[in-house]
Amino acid sequence: MTIRDRLRQLDVELPDLAPTFEFLAINTVGDLVFVSGHAPFFGGEYRYRGKVGREIDLPTAQSAAECAALGCLASLEHALGTLESIRRVVKVNGYVNCTEDFVNLPLVTDKASTLLIALFGESGRHARTTVGVSSLPLGVAVEIELIVQLDARLDP
Amino acid sequence: MTIRDRLRQLDVELPDLAPTFEFLAINTVGDLVFVSGHAPFFGGEYRYRGKVGREIDLPTAQSAAECAALGCLASLEHALGTLESIRRVVKVNGYVNCTEDFVNLPLVTDKASTLLIALFGESGRHARTTVGVSSLPLGVAVEIELIVQLDARLDP
Amino acid sequence: MTIRDRLRQLDVELPDLAPTFEFLAINTVGDLVFVSGHAPFFGGEYRYRGKVGREIDLPTAQSAAECAALGCLASLEHALGTLESIRRVVKVNGYVNCTEDFVNLPLVTDKASTLLIALFGESGRHARTTVGVSSLPLGVAVEIELIVQLDARLDP
Repeated sequence: MTIRDRLRQLDVELPDLAPTFEFLAINTVGDLVFVSGHAPFFGGEYRYRGKVGREIDLPTAQSAAECAALGCLASLEHALGTLESIRRVVKVNGYVNCTEDFVNLPLVTDKASTLLIALFGESGRHARTTVGVSSLPLGVAVEIELIVQLDARLDP
Repeated sequence: MTIRDRLRQLDVELPDLAPTFEFLAINTVGDLVFVSGHAPFFGGEYRYRGKVGREIDLPTAQSAAECAALGCLASLEHALGTLESIRRVVKVNGYVNCTEDFVNLPLVTDKASTLLIALFGESGRHARTTVGVSSLPLGVAVEIELIVQLDARLDP
Repeated sequence: MTIRDRLRQLDVELPDLAPTFEFLAINTVGDLVFVSGHAPFFGGEYRYRGKVGREIDLPTAQSAAECAALGCLASLEHALGTLESIRRVVKVNGYVNCTEDFVNLPLVTDKASTLLIALFGESGRHARTTVGVSSLPLGVAVEIELIVQLDARLDP
């Protein structure tokens, strides 16, 4: 089963590519790929805008985290040609735009983590850091950033 | 002298392992180990909860940073079998859950840095980033994250 | 043309080295260099202090980002001896000390990104993450952190 098959099985879709302005959505060095922080973006728009713990509740924040993780995968597929060349997910950073009394941060990023494990199996398990931030680009609720390892060195 | 000897000499103990939910406490790729963001955790509980600059003063925040750094080492020892296979500390990220007028952030993370240098000597010196965040998992005051280099490639 | 020539052409100067307390300004592992988070620092002082969206407006925040990126380059030149051994800019992290309603975060970090691309050409293009934080060391407006790749392994 390919990652594309598993995405269908989970009934989730890869979103469009978000604009990247002056930077790259992903950058490969050796067999590591640094994936830029991705905001939830689909249908040509940034979604899930607002502060977790105020306008955004926990289930909505979890959907935002999943959407942002899918955006990371869309950028990886676009740049690599296929998601099959991903050997392992190394690291996930979750940035949650939240009020200072919202402390259930790990539950938000968990949704990105479970998606990656559902898609990549044990190779999807990763080290992780989650922090609550005071603002995110365009006011989105969650930003997800990845480091993945490829099957082989692909850098120029 | 082993790292364990130096810990005894400094009269500090490695805490219990914190729960890791859906993610890994550490993940190795090549000779690099990405250590997840660790909150201060011991005796089965998250400790040092509160905002630095309000409920938590500077010395308490420094103890929280040291405790979180010790948690990173506990996870490394558990996963690697021994702390002796750590060749160098590469990077430390310190996230301080603070009020917006608390700006003595480097003094907080310094406590994690001095611990690592006391344990690993010159090999413990590292690049570092410290930022103040609006919230951290379970409301803890400090979260510490590491990248370390091992003596040899240990990834699968 | 050297990077030093391009700096002159852009009419920007590398600032003095900022104090690094207990940590290293840069740390090399394999062919990767982890550059510590750099605050805007020149003339022996931290500059651009204040919160973006309140005391600091967008153009001033952009200058702070450029200044912090130049500080990263000053530390790299000091440690490596020359900026010519930098092969590629891999990753940029931008931390913006902002009010929670300031959401134009990418425009701030863009100023660091465009500088790096102006200096290093296509090799200066990088993956990037920008987040808004509640505080930064000494109250500065922006902190910039880099990962760069060198032409060859230089670690001990």
